[in-house]
Amino acid sequence: MKLHGYFRSSASYRVRIALNLKGLRADHIPHHLRKGEQCAPAYLAINPQGLVPALEDDGGGVLTQSLAIIEWLDETHPEPPLLPKDPLRRARVRAFAQAIACDIHPVQNTKVLARLRELNLSEEQVTAWAAWANREGLSACEKLIAGEAGPFCFGAQPTIADLCLVPQLANARRFGVDVSAFPRLLKAEAAAKTIKAFADAAPDKQPDAE
Amino acid sequence: MKLHGYFRSSASYRVRIALNLKGLRADHIPHHLRKGEQCAPAYLAINPQGLVPALEDDGGGVLTQSLAIIEWLDETHPEPPLLPKDPLRRARVRAFAQAIACDIHPVQNTKVLARLRELNLSEEQVTAWAAWANREGLSACEKLIAGEAGPFCFGAQPTIADLCLVPQLANARRFGVDVSAFPRLLKAEAAAKTIKAFADAAPDKQPDAE
Repeated sequence: MKLHGYFRSSASYRVRIALNLKGLRADHIPHHLRKGEQCAPAYLAINPQGLVPALEDDGGGVLTQSLAIIEWLDETHPEPPLLPKDPLRRARVRAFAQAIACDIHPVQNTKVLARLRELNLSEEQVTAWAAWANREGLSACEKLIAGEAGPFCFGAQPTIADLCLVPQLANARRFGVDVSAFPRLLKAEAAAKTIKAFADAAPDKQPDAE
Repeated sequence: MKLHGYFRSSASYRVRIALNLKGLRADHIPHHLRKGEQCAPAYLAINPQGLVPALEDDGGGVLTQSLAIIEWLDETHPEPPLLPKDPLRRARVRAFAQAIACDIHPVQNTKVLARLRELNLSEEQVTAWAAWANREGLSACEKLIAGEAGPFCFGAQPTIADLCLVPQLANARRFGVDVSAFPRLLKAEAAAKTIKAFADAAPDKQPDAE
């Protein structure tokens, strides 16, 4: 398999964790987002959205969107499971993942921040925007799992929720958010960071890290 | 079941279509987003994100995030299926749905547009922002299904992809986007609009419509 990604892309980071947890190997093909490499015609032929990640499977199929890729990995390589079996628990895990993947990440991604700069907002205003999206979103996430014993977001094993949380907390820190306001999220992150699959997927461990 | 929503919320609209396709009844509880009713303490106790939709099932469980709700409906009420059986096809359908639910909708929702106004952008700039998010995103969606015969997004029956597409096209028109640039998307929309489950879920058919 080939994973098209970028070391700092939190959506790519989610898929790297999933591949590691499943014990799967993929060749990592970096596309430098700040240099616009994701908009090169050769990459747009693979993913017309011009976003990373995209996963090429060994049969030539192309998968896009991190959560769709992760659900596919979970369906085709069921062990260890990344979703609980109970439908209501599955829905809660997916909702937490989507609270990050839909409501935080896209509002503070490279493309949106670039658009804000085009509207003549200052660099300070752009960073404040990204911090706001992270702070508001993570604050809701903290409440979504307040009643969960853990140590992971949902129970004793990592799920898709943790795969989204760990990269998003890294983003939040990068934008200067005080994450100490989210003790339950930090507890889940601490549990995840003891697992090699998470540690090996970190941005600074990737070959294209700067 | 109770569906907390808003007539014009495209995420609520997706869930309304799913309920209708599954032949399920829910009491609709409207929360007026422009008046900020989704931030009332009583609603935040149901959904700490302060977003619609939220679905309360008959056992008292609360589900949030439209795609998580729809996957739960599909798992607990399998007929008619809203996802194909083949894992790679499922991934493509989910990716299309997420291209809308992650990459278009949250960038142009009420909360983000309100934030732009707080940054002193003009009403014209705010509408141009929403139009841009819709135009760019739908343009990618058009390419994602260019090779699909249809008439729906993926095949002869509606899937989660169509549940996301129809409400998003309504948003795009509301923001003045020329959707004639997307003939394949319009073909899928035309097929959907012949189905009563889609027609009955339209914003102007809801009790809280203005």
